[in-house]
Amino acid sequence: MNILDIIAKKRDKQELSKEEIDFFVKEYTNNNITDYQAAALVMAIYINGMNDVEITNLTTAMAYSGDVLDLSSLGEVVDKHSTGGVGDKITLILMPIIASLGIPVAKMSGRGLGFTGGTVDKLESIPGYTTNIPVDKFIQNVKEMGISLIGQTLNLAPADKKLYALRDTISCTESIPLIASSIMSKKIAAGANKIVIDVTCGSGAFMKNMEDAKKLADVMTRIGKLAGKETICVITDMNEPVGHAVGNTLEVIEAIDVLKGKIMPKDVENIITELGANMLILAGKAKNFDEGKAKILENISNGKAYNKFVELIQKQGGDISYIENTEKFEKAKYIIPIKASKSGKIVSLDAYTVGKMSVYLGAGRIKKEDKIDASVGFVFEKKVGDTVLKDEILGYIHSNDKEKGENVLSQELYIIQE
Amino acid sequence: MNILDIIAKKRDKQELSKEEIDFFVKEYTNNNITDYQAAALVMAIYINGMNDVEITNLTTAMAYSGDVLDLSSLGEVVDKHSTGGVGDKITLILMPIIASLGIPVAKMSGRGLGFTGGTVDKLESIPGYTTNIPVDKFIQNVKEMGISLIGQTLNLAPADKKLYALRDTISCTESIPLIASSIMSKKIAAGANKIVIDVTCGSGAFMKNMEDAKKLADVMTRIGKLAGKETICVITDMNEPVGHAVGNTLEVIEAIDVLKGKIMPKDVENIITELGANMLILAGKAKNFDEGKAKILENISNGKAYNKFVELIQKQGGDISYIENTEKFEKAKYIIPIKASKSGKIVSLDAYTVGKMSVYLGAGRIKKEDKIDASVGFVFEKKVGDTVLKDEILGYIHSNDKEKGENVLSQELYIIQE
Repeated sequence: MNILDIIAKKRDKQELSKEEIDFFVKEYTNNNITDYQAAALVMAIYINGMNDVEITNLTTAMAYSGDVLDLSSLGEVVDKHSTGGVGDKITLILMPIIASLGIPVAKMSGRGLGFTGGTVDKLESIPGYTTNIPVDKFIQNVKEMGISLIGQTLNLAPADKKLYALRDTISCTESIPLIASSIMSKKIAAGANKIVIDVTCGSGAFMKNMEDAKKLADVMTRIGKLAGKETICVITDMNEPVGHAVGNTLEVIEAIDVLKGKIMPKDVENIITELGANMLILAGKAKNFDEGKAKILENISNGKAYNKFVELIQKQGGDISYIENTEKFEKAKYIIPIKASKSGKIVSLDAYTVGKMSVYLGAGRIKKEDKIDASVGFVFEKKVGDTVLKDEILGYIHSNDKEKGENVLSQELYIIQE
Repeated sequence: MNILDIIAKKRDKQELSKEEIDFFVKEYTNNNITDYQAAALVMAIYINGMNDVEITNLTTAMAYSGDVLDLSSLGEVVDKHSTGGVGDKITLILMPIIASLGIPVAKMSGRGLGFTGGTVDKLESIPGYTTNIPVDKFIQNVKEMGISLIGQTLNLAPADKKLYALRDTISCTESIPLIASSIMSKKIAAGANKIVIDVTCGSGAFMKNMEDAKKLADVMTRIGKLAGKETICVITDMNEPVGHAVGNTLEVIEAIDVLKGKIMPKDVENIITELGANMLILAGKAKNFDEGKAKILENISNGKAYNKFVELIQKQGGDISYIENTEKFEKAKYIIPIKASKSGKIVSLDAYTVGKMSVYLGAGRIKKEDKIDASVGFVFEKKVGDTVLKDEILGYIHSNDKEKGENVLSQELYIIQE
């Protein structure tokens, strides 16, 4: 078998066999296939596509290209994944709820990159909380408390890491077969048996329109089945940021407030009940959506989800006095109100722009090595659909740099129609 | 302008502008665009194609990526190029004829690589002949004698060299836009105003079938016109080797015998009259094909072409006693007759197999650095269409290694039908 024949087959729109895909993934991971050969093959896949069997084989090959987490001792684990967005603190809220309902939660999350945030960065804004613990301790935590949230301590799907970085440099990020296999390979390597995926759709997501989001959701559902990992995809809106807060500490505070039952933004409720109910159905803990939704909301109002969150934070070294009193979190130096430029109805609060501005303020990274500033970001009091009066406060910019804060203020994040 | 947008455009089947193509060629030559980015773009071009304007712009950009030979002081130079083959000694025969008819011949040729031979290797098998002379001396020689044949002493079309090597490693050699621009860029850099191209077609050529050969010929004719270099393409057969001899010294001897009027293989006659007549027409030295053909054959029979050849060899340091008496050329140690396995008609003498076997005997190179053995190769007395008797001698293998010679003998190069 050789890479030239494999490239030529896909170039000529032929189906690649499992053996050919395995060969490519293995030899590319081992640096026996060059980046330019991989680039040619990836472009051919982008243009000529792959069928479900090929995508499944690519997914499986990448999943097994490195460490694969063995969660079998925990029973049936239902994992949750989001394709990324702005203000997406859903993992922080939903996973303690799920754990409090008796489904083991053993989740490795990523850091933020580009305009989207990452759960690990958010968790690390809680003083003392460690996201870097050995795998045996991680499993032990799940056995004892039913939940552990950590970073990617293992070498999960290295083939995907390599291909993902390559795609970024050759204009091949938006390929549905390649996105689907990238996501699913990481999930399979992370040990999940059943998976609920939040396919975000809109300006602040990788899928910009509903048609592409549906295609991606359909492909992942089908390849999940082919790979023996039951998968449900839920498409959610990412045209405006999720909830009110964007930025690491600010999102943690919002998540705590939701778990405490103090607030419940409408979009957050929709997402956690959609994803959560499906997770409960997959785990056999709910017969239908309505039952699942009721259980999710019940464990917020009875405090069980909040207690589970506190237990998790404490166990992994976090200072729970911050959870009990979120006023303790360090605040940004400058909190600049955003005022309505005129009276009317808010028609847009563009998630992509907010994501970019939040990176500009220091909340995210452009390069992997960048340091982040946990305290900066946004709190949006008003959202799309709200009616506002001229000069009314719509939200706040949290910045540690006055000039940057003022530059962001001049961006007119809100669009209001009279 | 950035390479990601250029890749994305071609990926999405859009036309690239002249500025985008210039940017790519320039930055790739200067190593500011990586091989994997070039690989992705080349694959997108392979699959999605290029229109004539794009191919012309690519050709021109590559032609001007390095040195461009200025032949304007010679008047109107008509260049000749072959897309390569086995036993192709046409340049050695045709160019002295052309020069003897008053058209300046200033030609830089290449070395052999893979199964095809190269004119420079053949010329160097003449003791003393130097193919490596400075450009000013090269031009001077043409002014004085009307002809000079040398190697590629200048840095002609380095962008093409880089892209050509890359294409070989990513299964993108057979793309007509890329082949056409590669050939034409080198011709333009070599200073020709008008070009006749021998598009070889068959097992011993890059174009394996007539449909592809016609497509390539059409594209080169059109882009030649767009680039302001009048171009005529002639499609010739390369299913069996050209003429009788294959191998460096053996082909030189055959060329000399043709120029001396001692022999004239039918296929050689067809090719030199087709190409030569068109060159005369382009140069305004013949009104039509028949007139051109007559002039070509006349200057063989009157000895003018042979005299021009002798003059060339002498001027560039070659020992003309070898030309006058070809028996002086060093012969291979083993000359092994190939005998007919049965009586019947020869239906095939596969050029590709002969080319590979001739490299195996040492006449050619697999890698650029390989040394060649000038004396080895084949002389085929019989060719396709000839009727033969069992055990009749069909030709000879010339080898300096007995075992290799016998291995080649066991290959059954001739296919005979009873």
